[in-house]
Order: sequence, then C-alpha cells, then structure tokens
Amino acid sequence: MEAEFLSWLRGQLPGHPRLRLGIGDDAAILEWTSGARCVVTSDMLNDGVDFVWDQCEGPLVGRKSLAVNLSDLAAMAAQPLAAVVSLTLPRRNALAVGRQLYQGLLPLAAEFGVAIAGGDTGSWDGPLVISIAAIGELTERGPLLRSGAQPGDAIVVTGSFGGSILGRHFRFTPRVHEALLLNDRYRLHAATDVSDGLSLDLSHITQESGCGALLEAAAVPVADDAYRLAAAEGDRMTPLEHALGDGEDFELILAVPPEEAARLLDDQPLEVPLTRIGTFTAERGLWIEEPGGRRQTLHPRGYEH
Amino acid sequence: MEAEFLSWLRGQLPGHPRLRLGIGDDAAILEWTSGARCVVTSDMLNDGVDFVWDQCEGPLVGRKSLAVNLSDLAAMAAQPLAAVVSLTLPRRNALAVGRQLYQGLLPLAAEFGVAIAGGDTGSWDGPLVISIAAIGELTERGPLLRSGAQPGDAIVVTGSFGGSILGRHFRFTPRVHEALLLNDRYRLHAATDVSDGLSLDLSHITQESGCGALLEAAAVPVADDAYRLAAAEGDRMTPLEHALGDGEDFELILAVPPEEAARLLDDQPLEVPLTRIGTFTAERGLWIEEPGGRRQTLHPRGYEH
Repeated sequence: MEAEFLSWLRGQLPGHPRLRLGIGDDAAILEWTSGARCVVTSDMLNDGVDFVWDQCEGPLVGRKSLAVNLSDLAAMAAQPLAAVVSLTLPRRNALAVGRQLYQGLLPLAAEFGVAIAGGDTGSWDGPLVISIAAIGELTERGPLLRSGAQPGDAIVVTGSFGGSILGRHFRFTPRVHEALLLNDRYRLHAATDVSDGLSLDLSHITQESGCGALLEAAAVPVADDAYRLAAAEGDRMTPLEHALGDGEDFELILAVPPEEAARLLDDQPLEVPLTRIGTFTAERGLWIEEPGGRRQTLHPRGYEH
Repeated sequence: MEAEFLSWLRGQLPGHPRLRLGIGDDAAILEWTSGARCVVTSDMLNDGVDFVWDQCEGPLVGRKSLAVNLSDLAAMAAQPLAAVVSLTLPRRNALAVGRQLYQGLLPLAAEFGVAIAGGDTGSWDGPLVISIAAIGELTERGPLLRSGAQPGDAIVVTGSFGGSILGRHFRFTPRVHEALLLNDRYRLHAATDVSDGLSLDLSHITQESGCGALLEAAAVPVADDAYRLAAAEGDRMTPLEHALGDGEDFELILAVPPEEAARLLDDQPLEVPLTRIGTFTAERGLWIEEPGGRRQTLHPRGYEH
C-alpha cells in the first residue's frame, strides 16, 4: 500500500523553494533563511503492527521508536539534534505505559545528544501509537542521498544481516557515529539504512540513482541470528535469504567509488566491520552471483508497508 | 491524564544546550549551530477521539490536522516552514482515506507556504491516526511565550468563542498572519492559542507567568455558535459558559501592556476583531466579574487530554 500511496503523493506535492529534498529518501532536507540546512524524518509505530506490546519490554519499544528515526538521520549523515514525541496511550494503563516508553527512550536520547522537544500525549481505547519526528543538522560535508550511486561503485555495508526479529531489531545501535565518520573521511556517493530488508533497501538506491546492482552471494555478511532462524523447525528460508529479506537490521548500505572502497575496506575505521558485497551496474535491475559464477535475478524482498 | 503525565515528564527531561524552550509552551524552540532558532510542535489526531471519520468530510480532517499545528506556531509568532505527516490508515480503505486527507491538507499547506517534508505512511486494522509535526522560523522579534504576562497587562483576544463543534473547529483559520503582524508592530508580553478552552488556556498563561487573571464577563466575545448550542434542547450551559469552556476556537490570547493595549485596540489592525476581556493580576488565580461587579472564582474548563 505504502509504495502506491507514496507514488501518488509524489505527484501531488508541489515543490517548495526551501525544501531541498522531499519524499523519496530516508529524510527530507530543509533550508533555513540563514542558509543552514536541516534534516527531518518521522516514523510512526503501532502496537500489533510494529511490535506486540504484551510480548515486549516497554522500554525497548520506546528505545526503538527513537532509534529508527536516528537510523534515518544516520543514513543522511546528519547529526541528530532533537525529537518530538507524540503518544496515544491505551487509556486503561496510560501513565504506566508512557513511563515505560520514556525509560527506554531517554537513555538513547542522552547517548546521542538528542533534545526531547515536546510532543503531544493523549489516550484512547485503542492500541498504543508512537509517532516521533527527529531533526538533525548536516555537516560541512553535506548529506548522503540515495540518489548518488554510479556504475562501478562498490556496495559496502556495515555489520551483518538477517534474523533481527530474534532481538536485534530492539537493541540495535543506530549508525549515527559511523555515518558521520565515514562521510567526513571518505568520498561516498550514496547511502541508505536497512529497515525494510537488505535487497529492498538496495533497490531504493538503484531506483533513485537510475542504476542496477550485482551482489556476490558469498560476500553478504549473514548474522548468527539468520542461521538460528533458518535452523528453526518449520523455517523454509536459507540464512542468506533471511539476510537479504528480513529487514530491521538498521545497518548502512553505501555506494563507494572503487578506489575509495579499497582504501575504506583496508582502513576498517569503525568498530563494526565494513564489507563489500557487490557492485553497482549501469544496467538496471538487481542480480546475485553465486560462488560458481551463476547469476540470478534478485527479487527485492523485505517489509512492504 | 495528560497533565499528570506531562508533570512527571518535565521532571524526567534533562536540559539540552540547544533546547531554548522545552515542554510547557505551545511549541519548543531549538537553536542551530548557526545561531538561528526554530520552533517545533506536534499534534496527533485519532479517529473516535479528535474526530469521527464516518461523520466527517475527510478533507476537513486532513485540513484540521495541519491547521492545529499552524495554530501552535502562530501562538509562538513563528513563520511556518514545513510539516512532516505520519499516517496510520485503516487497511480496508487506506488509499482512499489517505487521498482525502491530503485533499484538505495540501491547499492549507499551500495557503501558508508550508513544505510537506515527507513523513511515514502505514496501515492497520485499527482506526485512522494522523500525526503531524510542524517546524517554523522565528522572526527578528523573537517568540511569544506563555510565560511573559505581567500584572496589569490587558488580556486581549482575537475573534469569538464557543460552539466551535458546530463546524468552526474544522474550518478555522490558524492565526499565523495575525500573530506575525501583531508581534511585529506591537510590544506583547505573552500569547497562547485556544485549543483546550478559553479559561483553561488562559490558566496556562497565568501558570507559566506566575500571575492571575480577572475576566470581565460582559466583555468576552461570545460566538453565534455558542448561542446556537446553548439554545439547543437539553443543553444546560449558557452561551458564556460555552465560550469559556468549549475550546477548539484556535483564536489567540495575548498579554499586552496597558498603554500598548489601548493603542492596539484603537488601531484594530486585523481583519478579525481584537477585544480586551480582562486584566492579568498579581494575585494568582482566575476570577470573572459580572456586570453588577460581583466577582467569582473561575474554574478553568476545557478539553483535558
């Protein structure tokens, strides 16, 4: 539904002289009268859709609702500044639920220097709804967009993928510091974060950049959780399939010019590993190459909103 | 519930060097590294709480969800710049509902020069949820706060009050232009907008300013809608009571130094009437004086979240 709606909406929205980047990336870019630019993003999480309150630790839900926004700012290489938090709490237990959410949200805000700039709080007879909008500042190096990838660029990722549902989707570290460091020290062409799924989010870069991508199956860093999920009774996916389609890894996908990628991978400047998993191509489409050299079309998979 | 929760939350939130104003006003104020300051506010509207979708025109719901945020920016005398729109749509009818909302939202955004800077869209089996965060810029004249009222200041309001439920709560004009003009040309001490109710929102100014207020009953501009509501069968409130407690009038309450108030009321620089309805007092509390001179304690009434 979301893709169809956003496609319609993109056609409806007029341009605006102060909107430097609108719908279609991880966040929007606004320009101030001073000429400074800020980045704005927003995520809404609903009980029963994005989490199941009765099966979760409340503070982790609060933490995640802010963390997903910080991940969007990271994908733009923006320094987080503030968040506004809107809550509709279940009436029966409103105060306790609200407190639990903030118990997870506030430490993450402190860790990343995010000011909680108010919001809106109400209650109703329906399930918990959390909506957070986050604002960040761009550095002198400017933003990382989805749209800058060029044929020949290396596809480089942070961390590993798959099986985040086993717990990592709650406890992940938004790659804010990593994105700022990489954008500062290296010449990067494009970036996004993996929320929907590695293959689906990669396709967002290729779509916005007007190129394609060839993945090397053996190079994709598969998380231990993906192996654990694949080994579970009744699971019909391989660990690689989990890595490509599960989503909510909240790692970065980067498009890096080849010589810069060699330097970056040699440096390994982050605490989390950087891995080259393929190459952007001039021909549009997504492919995956298996160790024997056999190429297959890769159907982007992940969470479709 | 909201008051109790916000009181708890205010104790939990640490200060932040870039947060010039946090919870407790109509919007928060953030400072950029450039020194520029912006204003951020957020409102969440839920089907069944803030509107009843099946009994409404969809575009009016979309319009209102942005208009309430613009009213908050107006109360700070901020120039609206952008909004991020997060929607959780009812799955059964998601696309049609989303389109209807934007049909009302986009013309208002265009009217006030607001860039729609993306957002988040999802769907679920629950009722419609709309969460909008709006960003504005302060002018050289700085913000209007709730906290600046001084004893002796005149209480001045735009427009008239009561019975907005008959339709005005959907069709009101956020007092953005009015607030900017008044803040530019006159020396004002404090302001807020009337969302909860005239008496309750007035009490927000007195609480934040550490003062009290004395209203003149005969001076309160009572809307025709308030008379209409009071005349309805089964209604047990007077038109004045409707004016003082109904809320969602989205007019401005201003604290104006007495000599400046005389000039302002004489000028009447707006298309909407400006009326003096009372005086801020050193003694804390709210009172209302009837034509004969009898004073009564006024219990702040309005929509308690």
